[in-house]
Amino acid sequence: MQEEIIENLIEQFRTLPGVGYKTAQRYAYSVIEGSKERAEKFSYAIKEAKDKIGFCKVCGNFTDKEICPICLTRNRRIVCVVKEPKDIIAMEKVKTYQGVYHVLFGTISPLEHRGPDQIKIKELLQRVTNDKVEEVIVATNPDVEGEATAMYIAKILSPLGVKVTRLAQGIAMGSDLEYADEVTLAKALEARREIN
Amino acid sequence: MQEEIIENLIEQFRTLPGVGYKTAQRYAYSVIEGSKERAEKFSYAIKEAKDKIGFCKVCGNFTDKEICPICLTRNRRIVCVVKEPKDIIAMEKVKTYQGVYHVLFGTISPLEHRGPDQIKIKELLQRVTNDKVEEVIVATNPDVEGEATAMYIAKILSPLGVKVTRLAQGIAMGSDLEYADEVTLAKALEARREIN
Repeated sequence: MQEEIIENLIEQFRTLPGVGYKTAQRYAYSVIEGSKERAEKFSYAIKEAKDKIGFCKVCGNFTDKEICPICLTRNRRIVCVVKEPKDIIAMEKVKTYQGVYHVLFGTISPLEHRGPDQIKIKELLQRVTNDKVEEVIVATNPDVEGEATAMYIAKILSPLGVKVTRLAQGIAMGSDLEYADEVTLAKALEARREIN
Repeated sequence: MQEEIIENLIEQFRTLPGVGYKTAQRYAYSVIEGSKERAEKFSYAIKEAKDKIGFCKVCGNFTDKEICPICLTRNRRIVCVVKEPKDIIAMEKVKTYQGVYHVLFGTISPLEHRGPDQIKIKELLQRVTNDKVEEVIVATNPDVEGEATAMYIAKILSPLGVKVTRLAQGIAMGSDLEYADEVTLAKALEARREIN
């Protein structure tokens, strides 16, 4: 009986990304050995997050309302396109961005049989038309799928007269040139700028 | 508002052993992006485990009863002493062991100001006397603290005429001699046995 309860908890922890049996076991024991208050808070936090957090009807951001505060208050003429809702949280650390977002919920990936129809590209097209969008900043990851998705978006939006830009690629701030890979260095060299 | 709910969930995941902010964030997003059913099961499993699983009054094992099934059904004359309840789960994989257990809930550690009185040694002494224990197998970890604890237990139990043994130390089955450390090899050499 107690074995089943513990095994069940371990199984639940195993559903987390990158968690194997041993790690899940360690997590489960820490819950059982911890305080009752902690377990209750933990249990409640999981339920609350799932119950209350949904996706914004307009942009796909995490929100506890129908439409997220970013969509309601910011400049709708500039749309930053991201792959997942959590990318918005990363982008929002840049306090200077004044535009809104659009979550694709995936990227184009022929290998995984995901074409433009499987992600929210049609919805992006609609927003661009309805909101008279002036600039679409494609902030998908700088990998093969992210690049392909950016290319595709540029191709379908350019005829509409909207400016499509991509986040600059180059060496990361505070990083070490020695450890930069050759593709990044090539991109950085290509996009070099004059110092004034 | 949604930020607080998500942050709260991240904070809860951070209480797990070895989990930093980035990992906790990944776990939290996976819960939010996952199904409602999964979140409910997860939330319930945590609550259930903490509500129902306690420690056996006799041996300290995880149990949902007052006294665990091992204490109720097995040979009380042989007691295997372990550091933590989860060590019992590891030992129980050895299907041949017929005795019971005793959890110390720690080991003697002068560095962390933990003496014999801070762990369940007095209780062990009582059990040895009351249950007419014939053998105590000390299965604490083969590290400095585990060794010191084993020595201490042997010292206080020997005058009572009880046999105190220690799990054999040596090279692990299936391991590679090349990677065995010198202390392990020395122990293995010292405890070498004749092949019949």
